[in-house]
Amino acid sequence: MVLGGGGFIGTALCRRLLREGAKVKAFGRSRSFPDLLAGVPFIRGDFADISKLAQVLEQTDIVFHAISTTTPAASNINKIDDAQTNLLSTLHLLESCRELGVSKIVFLSTGGGIYGPGVDVPTPENADTSPICSYGIIKLAIEKYLNLFHHLYNLDYTILRLSNPFGIGQHSRKNQGVVAAFLKQAVLGQPLTIWGDGEVVRDFIFIDDVIDALVRAATYRGQHRIFNIGSGEGRSINEVVACIKTLLESPIQCTYKPGRSADVSKSILDVTLAKQELRWQPQTPFDIGLERTYRWLLEEHRQGLLEK
Amino acid sequence: MVLGGGGFIGTALCRRLLREGAKVKAFGRSRSFPDLLAGVPFIRGDFADISKLAQVLEQTDIVFHAISTTTPAASNINKIDDAQTNLLSTLHLLESCRELGVSKIVFLSTGGGIYGPGVDVPTPENADTSPICSYGIIKLAIEKYLNLFHHLYNLDYTILRLSNPFGIGQHSRKNQGVVAAFLKQAVLGQPLTIWGDGEVVRDFIFIDDVIDALVRAATYRGQHRIFNIGSGEGRSINEVVACIKTLLESPIQCTYKPGRSADVSKSILDVTLAKQELRWQPQTPFDIGLERTYRWLLEEHRQGLLEK
Repeated sequence: MVLGGGGFIGTALCRRLLREGAKVKAFGRSRSFPDLLAGVPFIRGDFADISKLAQVLEQTDIVFHAISTTTPAASNINKIDDAQTNLLSTLHLLESCRELGVSKIVFLSTGGGIYGPGVDVPTPENADTSPICSYGIIKLAIEKYLNLFHHLYNLDYTILRLSNPFGIGQHSRKNQGVVAAFLKQAVLGQPLTIWGDGEVVRDFIFIDDVIDALVRAATYRGQHRIFNIGSGEGRSINEVVACIKTLLESPIQCTYKPGRSADVSKSILDVTLAKQELRWQPQTPFDIGLERTYRWLLEEHRQGLLEK
Repeated sequence: MVLGGGGFIGTALCRRLLREGAKVKAFGRSRSFPDLLAGVPFIRGDFADISKLAQVLEQTDIVFHAISTTTPAASNINKIDDAQTNLLSTLHLLESCRELGVSKIVFLSTGGGIYGPGVDVPTPENADTSPICSYGIIKLAIEKYLNLFHHLYNLDYTILRLSNPFGIGQHSRKNQGVVAAFLKQAVLGQPLTIWGDGEVVRDFIFIDDVIDALVRAATYRGQHRIFNIGSGEGRSINEVVACIKTLLESPIQCTYKPGRSADVSKSILDVTLAKQELRWQPQTPFDIGLERTYRWLLEEHRQGLLEK
């Protein structure tokens, strides 16, 4: 069962699981790409709808929890809503999982939002957690509840703290991801909007590599619970712009806007533990991932799907 | 403003602040000892009542947040209620504080519930936080939100992670504290109820020492944010029973019941940081505190107040 199965990561995960021969179901508010989910039963529902959620979890072995109702920046504007819609709904989910005998939960947490501004980079999993966005605090609280449910009821779990995923299927209209936003602006011939001075550093990871980690996490049986999943490399926003310029082979205009207080200045994840324990590693170089995403967005644009 | 000012810690805090010459108000659902709060305006209300809460915070300089709607053991039975009544109400509180220009919040967190079972003892503030009760997870989330509100809006705060406070004013009927429960049973001539084998170790701190730390926290201006407040010494439940036997100079019966999954086996706080930064230290030896509490309970019993 993929919760949030209609979204960017969820859709890619469902397709991969289907290819692996798994029996896959998806749950979510909507499907960004219904065609891509052919063959995957999709249950439409809101995460807050407890009874529906409990219903869809019957006879489920493994749950991937990829639902988030907010983004780091938006979460600071309405923290109460973040707590309500993400934490409380997840607690209902966990109670249902233990009642219905779900064997394992794989939770998509955040590497960029959970560590806060003061930590060393690349940042290992045991670094101090002082989020400067509600999004990160709620993800952290959910991680702690997973630990509690394991302690009390032996519900198995693995947590992946993702850096900044990007790639095919990511739509900038949901305000997800700076790469998606830039590439869309580039495809549409618009200037790129940069929040702050562009020297903010992020760890970008291509979607296929994220999915690979998720699949490995589902069957992981070792003693560790939390894994950073990122490229392990930092790239400034200005460097991303430079890569896009190289890709397009044409000049690009940039518009600079004031920085946001939910942003840490530098976020790079140490992914040593995932390499050792999950026998995973990022395979897709940034520029290759960027080019594949760009080609896909160009095609979406040709079909008139980008402006929707 | 003392939130939870009618309770065990709140009442003692109000009295001390009054003695120090502060202008004190209290807010809470009820007063355990109305007589002791003479001279302290008491606003009766539920923590969930947002508009009332905002109202009482006007023209408030420092807020002590001593409200908890649950206990560690009870919180695991209804985690969702814990999140709803403690976390969401606290978020409303924090939003009100910043809107109304409150200068500082002193938050009563938990040392016994926040660190989890695997840490070294005595436990310093930077130890791993893996609570095995919802109570501890929600306290931790509130700590993280205090950090966020400081980051976003410069709202000042100090957090005290209390070990196991006991003393005059603690009523066992609210299921607070094993010392209160034992002493009440002893005064009433009942056998003492022990959960588990009695080898669970706790760090007991006398109420006067807790209050002293809270007053110092209110005016602390240093760089640290989180302080353990405990005696720094561990005592097993069986050792507490032995102390009570010595105090009463008579044999006592004990009833052993199954242990609870919300209990870590050994909890002792390292209070070095509070000693250095707050220039605080515990003053009351355990047996002295125990005797003072016992005398008080005897007097309550003579007045027929203990069985209420």
